[in-house]
Amino acid sequence: MRTQVAIVGSGPAGLLLGQLLHEAGVDNVIVERKSKEYVLGRIRAGVLEQGLVDLLDEAKASDRLHREGLVHHGVEIASIERRLRIDMHALTGKAVTVYGQTEVTRDLMAAREASGLKTLYDTENAVPHDYDGEKPYLTFEVDGEARRLDCDFIAGCDGYHGICRQSLPEGSSRTFERVYPFGWLGVLADVPPVSHELIYAQSPRGFALCSMRSTTRSRYYVQVPADEDIAAWSDEAFWDELRRRLPPDVAEGVTTGPSIEKSIAPLRSFVAEPMRFGRLFLAGDAAHIVPPTGAKGLNLAASDVNYLSKALVEHYHERSSSGLDHYSDRALRRVWKAERFSWWMTSLLHRFDQTDAFGERLQLAEMAYLMDSEAAQASFAENYVGLPY
Amino acid sequence: MRTQVAIVGSGPAGLLLGQLLHEAGVDNVIVERKSKEYVLGRIRAGVLEQGLVDLLDEAKASDRLHREGLVHHGVEIASIERRLRIDMHALTGKAVTVYGQTEVTRDLMAAREASGLKTLYDTENAVPHDYDGEKPYLTFEVDGEARRLDCDFIAGCDGYHGICRQSLPEGSSRTFERVYPFGWLGVLADVPPVSHELIYAQSPRGFALCSMRSTTRSRYYVQVPADEDIAAWSDEAFWDELRRRLPPDVAEGVTTGPSIEKSIAPLRSFVAEPMRFGRLFLAGDAAHIVPPTGAKGLNLAASDVNYLSKALVEHYHERSSSGLDHYSDRALRRVWKAERFSWWMTSLLHRFDQTDAFGERLQLAEMAYLMDSEAAQASFAENYVGLPY
Repeated sequence: MRTQVAIVGSGPAGLLLGQLLHEAGVDNVIVERKSKEYVLGRIRAGVLEQGLVDLLDEAKASDRLHREGLVHHGVEIASIERRLRIDMHALTGKAVTVYGQTEVTRDLMAAREASGLKTLYDTENAVPHDYDGEKPYLTFEVDGEARRLDCDFIAGCDGYHGICRQSLPEGSSRTFERVYPFGWLGVLADVPPVSHELIYAQSPRGFALCSMRSTTRSRYYVQVPADEDIAAWSDEAFWDELRRRLPPDVAEGVTTGPSIEKSIAPLRSFVAEPMRFGRLFLAGDAAHIVPPTGAKGLNLAASDVNYLSKALVEHYHERSSSGLDHYSDRALRRVWKAERFSWWMTSLLHRFDQTDAFGERLQLAEMAYLMDSEAAQASFAENYVGLPY
Repeated sequence: MRTQVAIVGSGPAGLLLGQLLHEAGVDNVIVERKSKEYVLGRIRAGVLEQGLVDLLDEAKASDRLHREGLVHHGVEIASIERRLRIDMHALTGKAVTVYGQTEVTRDLMAAREASGLKTLYDTENAVPHDYDGEKPYLTFEVDGEARRLDCDFIAGCDGYHGICRQSLPEGSSRTFERVYPFGWLGVLADVPPVSHELIYAQSPRGFALCSMRSTTRSRYYVQVPADEDIAAWSDEAFWDELRRRLPPDVAEGVTTGPSIEKSIAPLRSFVAEPMRFGRLFLAGDAAHIVPPTGAKGLNLAASDVNYLSKALVEHYHERSSSGLDHYSDRALRRVWKAERFSWWMTSLLHRFDQTDAFGERLQLAEMAYLMDSEAAQASFAENYVGLPY
């Protein structure tokens, strides 16, 4: 079997890359370890930057997004005493769209099927080969049978635990990591959200987030210790704790209801450098993780895919390797800015038990400065809606 | 002896407070531990915010400042690879004035003498009394002879080591502190500055600053370990190290010459809360210290004096205690924002040996973001020229 670009992983990064390449006439095959149903069962939030929405337009996979997605022009930052609405649209001319990552995946899968592009699900033991040379290929098994996919390039869109980064020779990659001593306990419930925009709240008891999937389905989070046992959290305990962390007028407005999903997600910052190894390119979670504060994970995958798809198309259409040669640097430049913002926003909003008294006051000063300064709000807004590609 | 406001300390904070009160018809006496010559011998840099210049105008002590001070509309931030001029004036409509703190002190002393106000130098064992009641007073000795100064209010402008904060009852004050593991080695030389504006430089070898006192006298700094022995630094070693930390085109332009002063200053962040205890008010270094990065120390003292002088004048002119009652909160709100900025700018520019690899990359990302974002530059500029009082 042969294709131009072999894509490992059928998450949103791999699927988006596949569609963008297809629209530019570049053939590609996706090799995925799991089943289609498994991939679609991974429930993830989604706050989409304008850049990602534009890429989905380009990929012809945005019809439902434009029908069902909630366009947000503002976002709220709150402390127990104060609320601040940051008018992102007024400050940057851009907005974000609330639309589940799972739905993005579903739409991209549908577009891929309509395009007649091949996706191999349920593959085992995939391994990238010879990407240092001119003729890379993937080997893997389907139903116990060995297969080989020859290609010009391999795109590793297979996530943090994926084989592409892990198959690199020892010492070829440098990693940077920070693990936070807390996680997010999230509850999904079929109740109307307390506000039509997101509310990120700092409180002495820790961080809380009021979010939503639709106008009738809410998603709320509270910061908990990293080793928290989810069994300790009844729905009632969750709603009580959530309300204690919100400004009183917000807390009063929260409609509670039975949880339909409840889980704890860890918070971590991670970057592996570089993102290119000969004819193997990493994109998305395969190369970097951000804590969920600010919702940069999916958007950063899209940013990588933007650079990578353009670089590959440039290679095929113009016989130029310039985009490919600069891919890692360009992608990482934006990755690190998003890592910075995600770390900063995490630091601003969470309770850090290890922090000294000076650090606590600094955190309050950071919040006071953000609330009082239009320049600080403009800086927040441009990061939240997404820095330019 | 009796006065309305007894001011402890004849540094710029005490002197400025005295002149502002005098201009509003409020009598005051300054009690200073050292001699006038000693006070004038304390050489300090000075980058004056517009707010401080305005206060010096109000205090009628700004004639020479306007003649000799260097008005800067911009400031440079540099890494080894890139230089960025932040046009503060374009971004904020404000500027800063380079004029030595010692000169500010000298001008305020001259204004004070012209006003006929009393300053008692060379006093010993000053102690504030009964500031919890209606009739506070100071005791001290002059030439071994006990003196008493009755007053309505005591202003502690006597610096970090001063008696006013240190005489507070145990537990009445809460302190916040951060000590940085490095200091600034500074050299003063009669050579023209490399640039007509300040250059703050980040480099893998550590921080460097190109500053000046005049168009013919330069002040340069390099970050050194906190326990550095100044004897280890010949002039030649200093100039060599300075140039290694600057972008090549800046390094080439540095004119070297014999040092006329060379010293190491530690870096520390410190805040004591509250800043009011009955009829005793702390202002300036007596209540807070910032690291020198961003030059907020003198400006923050001026900010305190602004609130305190207006509050005292309001008390005498309008019989209202509102300003006095809010002094500590108002002053601290601005203090913490300046502490935040000074800490942030210190973190941005210095080499921290304890930082992990992720932290190092975050620092580079912070710099890249500042260099690429006008919003980040606007935020920097509004802090550098001074947030509104």
